[in-house]
Amino acid sequence: MRAAIFNGPRQIEVGDRPDPAITARTDAIVRVVLGCVCGSDLWYYRGESPHELGPIGHEFVGEVTEVGSAITGVAPGDFVVAPFTYSDGTCPHCLAGWTSNCANGGSFGNHGVDGGQGEAVRVPFADATLVKVPGSGHDDATIRSILALSDVMCTGHHAAVSGGVKPGDTVAVVGDGAVGLCAMIAARRLGAERIIALSRNPARQALARELGATDVLAERGDAATEAVMTMTDGVGVDAALECVGTNQSMATAFAIARPGSIVGAIGAPHDVEVPINTVIFRNIGLRGGVAPVRRYLPELLDDVLAGRINPGRVFDFDTDLEGIVEAYEAMDERRAVKALIRVAS
Amino acid sequence: MRAAIFNGPRQIEVGDRPDPAITARTDAIVRVVLGCVCGSDLWYYRGESPHELGPIGHEFVGEVTEVGSAITGVAPGDFVVAPFTYSDGTCPHCLAGWTSNCANGGSFGNHGVDGGQGEAVRVPFADATLVKVPGSGHDDATIRSILALSDVMCTGHHAAVSGGVKPGDTVAVVGDGAVGLCAMIAARRLGAERIIALSRNPARQALARELGATDVLAERGDAATEAVMTMTDGVGVDAALECVGTNQSMATAFAIARPGSIVGAIGAPHDVEVPINTVIFRNIGLRGGVAPVRRYLPELLDDVLAGRINPGRVFDFDTDLEGIVEAYEAMDERRAVKALIRVAS
Repeated sequence: MRAAIFNGPRQIEVGDRPDPAITARTDAIVRVVLGCVCGSDLWYYRGESPHELGPIGHEFVGEVTEVGSAITGVAPGDFVVAPFTYSDGTCPHCLAGWTSNCANGGSFGNHGVDGGQGEAVRVPFADATLVKVPGSGHDDATIRSILALSDVMCTGHHAAVSGGVKPGDTVAVVGDGAVGLCAMIAARRLGAERIIALSRNPARQALARELGATDVLAERGDAATEAVMTMTDGVGVDAALECVGTNQSMATAFAIARPGSIVGAIGAPHDVEVPINTVIFRNIGLRGGVAPVRRYLPELLDDVLAGRINPGRVFDFDTDLEGIVEAYEAMDERRAVKALIRVAS
Repeated sequence: MRAAIFNGPRQIEVGDRPDPAITARTDAIVRVVLGCVCGSDLWYYRGESPHELGPIGHEFVGEVTEVGSAITGVAPGDFVVAPFTYSDGTCPHCLAGWTSNCANGGSFGNHGVDGGQGEAVRVPFADATLVKVPGSGHDDATIRSILALSDVMCTGHHAAVSGGVKPGDTVAVVGDGAVGLCAMIAARRLGAERIIALSRNPARQALARELGATDVLAERGDAATEAVMTMTDGVGVDAALECVGTNQSMATAFAIARPGSIVGAIGAPHDVEVPINTVIFRNIGLRGGVAPVRRYLPELLDDVLAGRINPGRVFDFDTDLEGIVEAYEAMDERRAVKALIRVAS
């Protein structure tokens, strides 16, 4: 099969890989229809995080083509969405809902497991991992939104849930990347009344407003803090959602959060120092992390299918598998928010 | 009046200070009956944290002797307990329950406000700050427990509440100081089934067991982590309560917490680095801080008066105001868990 292969920083190629085959009774093979590039893919693309050489990509939707003998929940022909981490569904962490911390799990496109940026994927623990999409004949916009559930939308939701967003809240989202935009969708969905987007890119500002932001601030650092504090009469926001992963964005999130609130953080951290004195002396908590996508998928899939949320709106660059290098380049250069890869029809 | 005065690290004396007087309509004067020394007092006593020179001590119970013209909630003759921070009760943070982050508040024994380690205190915002103790003729043990509500017990409770302790939980308490011991009382009160105390001092181990610990571990660092992980079948605890404030104790708390749980932290931080990769990749949160004692006081006072909790058990060293230097020394040398100061009868 054809698949994107990571050969080192800024060295991605589309090449031939062995067709995946069932290796355990609990496996399934999925033929990928749509994949995409994640903001977190850029970290190793840029050489800022390690990644082993080989297959990449952890987000995909597609059709089941083959299942192991123990599989009962999905069957060949089913259209499915995969969370970006696979999980066994039976370990103590899975049973507690923390599927992304499965004792036997992992993420796609890592450690020899096929990536979503390729024509097919062997899915471990397929019954516990895959979610079958009900119905058929979904339009293109719906399928794009379902693809967004594999990571970015559920990750934005995790930021909002971790930050304890509740009806009537004033929420600030630090970061206007695809996850930040999805965090705005999630905050609105959870009933936030005022959603302040910290964004200085005109195209992203417009998308932020479409997806739920009521206010947009172009300021950064101390100026952003001052602006948010002025907007909230010196109180701070009920929840600050950190959707970048840098030290500056974390510092801003803590600075604008009101006492007693929680910073909901999902950015993969790079040289981030948590301001412990702010935690303790201002009673501002920190929660978040690698989203338990499998837990969130069913309820968010319902909302996508009912047309209540449209997270597929974050895809603003389309290409096919052979064009994936250009997709990485567009995201690296911030010409694209998030690139969708049409792998098959 | 006589009062303890901080003249610099290891230079505490009992001297004469002006009798406090009403300066605002919302003030009250309290004649201190019992005060005590806090673990956090040791930080400046040892020269490890700054503190302005002058009155000290932030925990006390006593009798109201005079009130400003706007005071309606307490009257001369009332026996009261003060939270260690005063608060106006009307700012947005107070209204949200975060009295320790009051926009106009502060702590006793700081910034020119009298300390609890003296014969009398002017209490700002007395209606919002003081809690009247119902009934009369309480025995000595009860009054000692009421004194513990001014800080240490409510702070231990804040660790447990911040860590999200719920019925049936397995909880680990890192730290066997007075706050750690109170965190064990709080965890038991909130329904924890198993309470693991990390303590290597035999006297404190015994007290820990009396106050709620079901298991005691003398290990520290990696050995403590390994022991807790073995006890929890590799899962980790449902809540880890950090009651020290050092980098090692924070690291241990994060290492033994299960994915999805929250480290409840109340130790004043000294060179603490929050392990952000653990936060993000293991989904372990961090909450806590300066306890909103005024919010917690009523419910915990009910429990003390009903004999359901006995936090006064943490006092294991008694002296009077003139003997306070010895109290600091005993706590500094870890001969005492917590020293009680009998200021008046």
